[in-house]
Amino acid sequence: MSFDSRRDFAPYLRDLQERVCAALERVDGTPFREERWERPGGGGGRSRLVEEGPVLERGGVNFSEVHGELPEKLAATLPGSGRAFYAAGLSLVLHPRNPRAPTVHANYRCFQKGEALWFGGGADLTPAYLFEEDARHFHRTLRDACGERYADFKRACDDYFFIRHRGERRGVGGIFFDYLQGDRDALFDLVRRCAEAFLPSYLPVLERRKDAPFGERERSWQLLRRGRYVEFNLVYDRGTLFGLETGGRIESVLMSLPPLARWSSAAEPSPGGEEAKLLDVLRNPKEWA
Amino acid sequence: MSFDSRRDFAPYLRDLQERVCAALERVDGTPFREERWERPGGGGGRSRLVEEGPVLERGGVNFSEVHGELPEKLAATLPGSGRAFYAAGLSLVLHPRNPRAPTVHANYRCFQKGEALWFGGGADLTPAYLFEEDARHFHRTLRDACGERYADFKRACDDYFFIRHRGERRGVGGIFFDYLQGDRDALFDLVRRCAEAFLPSYLPVLERRKDAPFGERERSWQLLRRGRYVEFNLVYDRGTLFGLETGGRIESVLMSLPPLARWSSAAEPSPGGEEAKLLDVLRNPKEWA
Repeated sequence: MSFDSRRDFAPYLRDLQERVCAALERVDGTPFREERWERPGGGGGRSRLVEEGPVLERGGVNFSEVHGELPEKLAATLPGSGRAFYAAGLSLVLHPRNPRAPTVHANYRCFQKGEALWFGGGADLTPAYLFEEDARHFHRTLRDACGERYADFKRACDDYFFIRHRGERRGVGGIFFDYLQGDRDALFDLVRRCAEAFLPSYLPVLERRKDAPFGERERSWQLLRRGRYVEFNLVYDRGTLFGLETGGRIESVLMSLPPLARWSSAAEPSPGGEEAKLLDVLRNPKEWA
Repeated sequence: MSFDSRRDFAPYLRDLQERVCAALERVDGTPFREERWERPGGGGGRSRLVEEGPVLERGGVNFSEVHGELPEKLAATLPGSGRAFYAAGLSLVLHPRNPRAPTVHANYRCFQKGEALWFGGGADLTPAYLFEEDARHFHRTLRDACGERYADFKRACDDYFFIRHRGERRGVGGIFFDYLQGDRDALFDLVRRCAEAFLPSYLPVLERRKDAPFGERERSWQLLRRGRYVEFNLVYDRGTLFGLETGGRIESVLMSLPPLARWSSAAEPSPGGEEAKLLDVLRNPKEWA
């Protein structure tokens, strides 16, 4: 019996959501709040949110499974015939409180339209302070999960999470892919390996940074970097703009925005400091794995 | 001798920038920081910025006068022949610290392309807490400045500053116009009356709210509303997106963003409170003048 997204992928994502939330709750000490919602056009979702936790200042791990008819114009831009679609996905963003603990995003999804079925997703790490050890661990864990496709997925991630008007990447990258079509069982296996890599890629990083000492300077820089995160998500992120344009559930679409962000004209850090070290890597992406 | 934008409009705006900054400096007690910049393609600007002032948490009053060649694609969307353009404008955004003192934006500009010349601009008020007295004063001052055109400009403002994905206006509006062509002397006179109305429309409001008592609840709501301001500016504002796409000077383009903004999933205020009263007006714009 070959891959069926409703039977195989959606339950897998729901189970992964449980496991990811359980692991995060152990670190944070706060239970996530669950919100179930229905989509007027068909389907719905289960959001799990944390706000003002001791470790996670804001975050969400959202499962959704939706179906219905795509608007004509949008349908024309996607593979497959007709307008009927089905999509299942798990999307998460975590903004830790500690400026030395990086923000993380991951998303894995399966989309069907007519006879076409494809997978998309990825994961990327956004530190305010660079720990090369963390970037290496994150990338190596993902590389081990996606094998020979890592190089392409890594480059696609650097290309995608680019804040053009700043000439900076959003963070130290990770993996990114879309429109993966072909042997569905093999692709499901690949996507599952990537998705399973989320906790091992991120939890050890969060654990070792969450209690790092910090002061006003670090907090202030973290809030500035979060401002850049907002700029990327609202100006460039296809998923966010798609959600806003198609009348998605706003609190889920904008779950990615940070709890607090700052803007200042005097944002360029002094040369030689830790802040400048991060910027250098955002302007000139490196190989980490 | 009829209207000439270089001779008549640019010096007028420069002088207005001086007067506006001087008046704001008297209220805030902090001198604005000046930054002069040049545009690689032609022209430049003079920005005046305030950050971390006792009254103004962040703000800018920016004059720019630029000229050169527009990109082909952009040129095709604008009146007038050819690609050569000239533009002079004054743009200001002020984010007061006190949650009871409203954010304000104003912009007046003249654009020339080939034989065409047009004016654009407006002013709008964005309170976190609604004082009907303030909204009325702001609108009436603008109405007295633009006379019979007020009704159209007011409606255009409500239409423009609409955060579609939230179903809310950005604030209580004001006036908005673009592509005003015709008798240049008469239009300059109209735009000058509107621009001169800025200080009398806003200063009395700022003066009477800047020292209002507030606590955590009001600050927190203010930061949430500022998050909406960010959403509007980065997702919908034509001027901001134009600036980002055409490689404008980023710190001037994003001068409009607030010093600090907040996002939360639990953002809907309890019914009957002051916060809900504001939301009602943002969802159902009112006549104020």
